[in-house]
Amino acid sequence: MGRVFLVGAGPGDPELLTRKAARILEQADVVLFDSLVSAEVLQLASPAAELVDVGKRAGFKLLTQDEINSLLVAYAGRYETVVRLKGGDPMLFGRAAEEIEALRRANIPFEVVPGITAASGAAAAAGFSLTDRRTASQVLFTTFSRGASVKSLGWREVTADTTLAIYMPGVDYAEVAARLVDAGLDPEIPCAVVSHATQPEQRICWTNIAALFDEQKLPAPAVVIVGKVATQAVREIGERTVFGQFSESDNLSIPVRSWVKN
Amino acid sequence: MGRVFLVGAGPGDPELLTRKAARILEQADVVLFDSLVSAEVLQLASPAAELVDVGKRAGFKLLTQDEINSLLVAYAGRYETVVRLKGGDPMLFGRAAEEIEALRRANIPFEVVPGITAASGAAAAAGFSLTDRRTASQVLFTTFSRGASVKSLGWREVTADTTLAIYMPGVDYAEVAARLVDAGLDPEIPCAVVSHATQPEQRICWTNIAALFDEQKLPAPAVVIVGKVATQAVREIGERTVFGQFSESDNLSIPVRSWVKN
Repeated sequence: MGRVFLVGAGPGDPELLTRKAARILEQADVVLFDSLVSAEVLQLASPAAELVDVGKRAGFKLLTQDEINSLLVAYAGRYETVVRLKGGDPMLFGRAAEEIEALRRANIPFEVVPGITAASGAAAAAGFSLTDRRTASQVLFTTFSRGASVKSLGWREVTADTTLAIYMPGVDYAEVAARLVDAGLDPEIPCAVVSHATQPEQRICWTNIAALFDEQKLPAPAVVIVGKVATQAVREIGERTVFGQFSESDNLSIPVRSWVKN
Repeated sequence: MGRVFLVGAGPGDPELLTRKAARILEQADVVLFDSLVSAEVLQLASPAAELVDVGKRAGFKLLTQDEINSLLVAYAGRYETVVRLKGGDPMLFGRAAEEIEALRRANIPFEVVPGITAASGAAAAAGFSLTDRRTASQVLFTTFSRGASVKSLGWREVTADTTLAIYMPGVDYAEVAARLVDAGLDPEIPCAVVSHATQPEQRICWTNIAALFDEQKLPAPAVVIVGKVATQAVREIGERTVFGQFSESDNLSIPVRSWVKN
């Protein structure tokens, strides 16, 4: 019987896979991958490996989570090294719980190879820390569900020194902003929308909760980081704009590499 | 002038560095490292690199954060590639905010290379997901400060479907447990203390809030994961114990590799 590796592909940049993830990919007999995994990352897999797209449109039909679980079990019966490759970290918003349950039930040995989660990638790329012992003692990694109540989102409870990292914010920024205001957060709190973090097409929108309502939408995948930690970077860019390094429009949404000095 | 790389060393296993972190270490002229960084990780640095211990007992005296900031700036004047190597992810409880501020003030170009944070390493090693769309919609990454009020800890606000990852819990588990109970959490909620996650000396203590009071202390660094997400793994080990695979005492604190099937 084979072994299943649940492997984190990280935020996008193929250099941000772990060394272990790269090694396991080289040994893979089959790789079941999500739509979030980039072509550059897939190129790290053994040329002999079978690549199976279990993303949103695999074989022109939607695979359910149950179908993916069954596929994993079936491949483990056929192959020695089965890799389940997920964007970010499998253990954060990656539905790993259900796959692990299925593997345990089928008595299939498995191992988890962690990955860099989107918020870490976004913070690194945007150049600000998610925590700061002076202003941000903790971070809530959460998601936005349309129509969910603020209570069920759990945002009302966020203290003034909690950073919020909102995964999968969707494109209705106005609703996200409304929920943040409903939760009692000060509209002046800065936030940054980071789209395609660490990838060439990365874009960052520096804003605050009040302005987020009308902000230009950035392509998925994106993460919204909300909290005082973004203040420094926002002010920094503002100051540089004064020196003419960026135009007014750049100030709202610029590729990060242009403001990390060379 | 040189460039400073703030690099995440990950949870301990040198294979869990990113490929980029390994490449930058190979190019390093100097590496300023924390006490949490393992010898195996340091071996990835260029043999020509100067290794500077800025951990707790560098040169037999305690370096303050300000002194570390000054060192970074000074080395950037002397070397081309300066690596500041931190355990886990620099942007999560890594004091990167202060170093970034110092570098910006000194106009020194810098780049952040994210790392696998301790909670991701712990979850991967322990085999349970931090989120689960059925029971755990979000995760709070937090720390335990002795004497801090529950209000300032922000734990009272945690909803029933929030997983708590407590970094640097210290050794006073009774006080951590008391704070969790004060915060209104059900004493039956399972938790796992993961010590030296992903390293050969890794140990896991499977317990719950009520039992955490009297639990045997595990060596730092450790992370405490609190939440329903740990239920499955706890039950799983309980079931295996019935089949005689582990002794009663193993059930509380066992090296993970013995229950990940081979």
